[in-house]
Amino acid sequence: MKRSIEDTSIVFIGAGNLATNLAVALYKKGFRVVQIYSRTEESAGKLAQAVEASYTTDLDEVVTDAQLYVVSLKDDAFLELLPRMVERRENGLWVHTAGSIPLNVWQGHAERFGVFYPMQTFTKARLVDFREIPVFVESNSEADTQFLKDIAAALSGRVYECTSEERQSLHLAAVFACNFTNHMYALASRLLAKYNLPFEVMLPLIDETARKVHTMNPQMAQTGPAVRYDRQVIDKHLAMLADEPEMQQIYRLLSESIHKFG
Amino acid sequence: MKRSIEDTSIVFIGAGNLATNLAVALYKKGFRVVQIYSRTEESAGKLAQAVEASYTTDLDEVVTDAQLYVVSLKDDAFLELLPRMVERRENGLWVHTAGSIPLNVWQGHAERFGVFYPMQTFTKARLVDFREIPVFVESNSEADTQFLKDIAAALSGRVYECTSEERQSLHLAAVFACNFTNHMYALASRLLAKYNLPFEVMLPLIDETARKVHTMNPQMAQTGPAVRYDRQVIDKHLAMLADEPEMQQIYRLLSESIHKFG
Repeated sequence: MKRSIEDTSIVFIGAGNLATNLAVALYKKGFRVVQIYSRTEESAGKLAQAVEASYTTDLDEVVTDAQLYVVSLKDDAFLELLPRMVERRENGLWVHTAGSIPLNVWQGHAERFGVFYPMQTFTKARLVDFREIPVFVESNSEADTQFLKDIAAALSGRVYECTSEERQSLHLAAVFACNFTNHMYALASRLLAKYNLPFEVMLPLIDETARKVHTMNPQMAQTGPAVRYDRQVIDKHLAMLADEPEMQQIYRLLSESIHKFG
Repeated sequence: MKRSIEDTSIVFIGAGNLATNLAVALYKKGFRVVQIYSRTEESAGKLAQAVEASYTTDLDEVVTDAQLYVVSLKDDAFLELLPRMVERRENGLWVHTAGSIPLNVWQGHAERFGVFYPMQTFTKARLVDFREIPVFVESNSEADTQFLKDIAAALSGRVYECTSEERQSLHLAAVFACNFTNHMYALASRLLAKYNLPFEVMLPLIDETARKVHTMNPQMAQTGPAVRYDRQVIDKHLAMLADEPEMQQIYRLLSESIHKFG
């Protein structure tokens, strides 16, 4: 009998935001998530329960016969634990999920290795739908690249093969499009709180700003005082931020950048 | 017979992004947009045609018997034209649509005046649905404030009365939540273009980033290298931006700000 892709036995090394979302998505699709490793029992146990897996906080206890090991740790923790985690588990396929780490980090440690990078903002408390999430895969063999693509395709309609260099560029662009964007929301929220105005009032504007770039490029979509180079308004806003020097500096720098790049 | 609010005769002074969207929305709701003034015949004519109004490029030709004059000009053009536009038209209600200009700018020029501020990002080529747009109104009389609220309520389910000070704060927050956010999209797009990657790949991330703050506050929603204070990644990204000093400066400043405010 032919085994299906969902029979793949998977171990998660890490139980953070990305690992939680990915493990739950795989579990829901019928994959066998067999074990969760995390440095803290709370994280390991919680995710293990959600996906009916066992868990451990001891790297030496990680099972040695899984087919796929998905490593989702902070970059520095990953590099520190790398040699020890692969030892005695060289038969499995090892992938990390980081946009920023090249494929060849595995070289000299694992025999079969790759990258499985779902480009999204993940938070434990908010489980996202994977169908629309672009997943970028890469590995050191054609067969394993196809294997990773098949797994990704079980979750998402947007699966791409890409090089480490492309992935690093995507990740950098994602920091602007997501993390820095979210920080703009946070700074708006901070301003509104100061004047006792509710953040909710910004949501239609935030939504339209995001929707707009589905149909026109961001440069065409720009509006507001900076792109009009409306000095009256810009100077008034800078004066309003006099007691928030960091925000004032951000306002000035971004207005100049909008004026320059459009 | 009682006249309905839609019988209000309205003149638009200005035919830019906001004026176009607002005039079309009012026209679609059955309001009588009678005339469009713009400095350029092309803008005036195009909007006039869309709302079945007459148009002029000569301020002296603006009709004197409209009930409502909606002024939607760049701040400096508004201040320059203000005295001349009101002259001989003191019986109408004069409103501007700017987040940044206080109510009392009209003082000494018009007798009945106010503000009608729809907080949204408007582009001529993209007509938006007004139902969800918060509209902030203010005037120098209770009767006219109610009149403006009734007009706004014909378009939107979110009508608020607010002071000039509150409106200025909203506008400043909107610059962060919309214009600066859009610029983060533009910078991401610029990076992707450099590596021949399509901007479209960012859209699921952009959408989720916006959706997320509907259910959690932006500080809780933050992810990525800056909030984790992942120096490895941050330093790598700064190195990747070595040939883009402005973007490098923006990256550094925003990462510090995220690290500080969360």
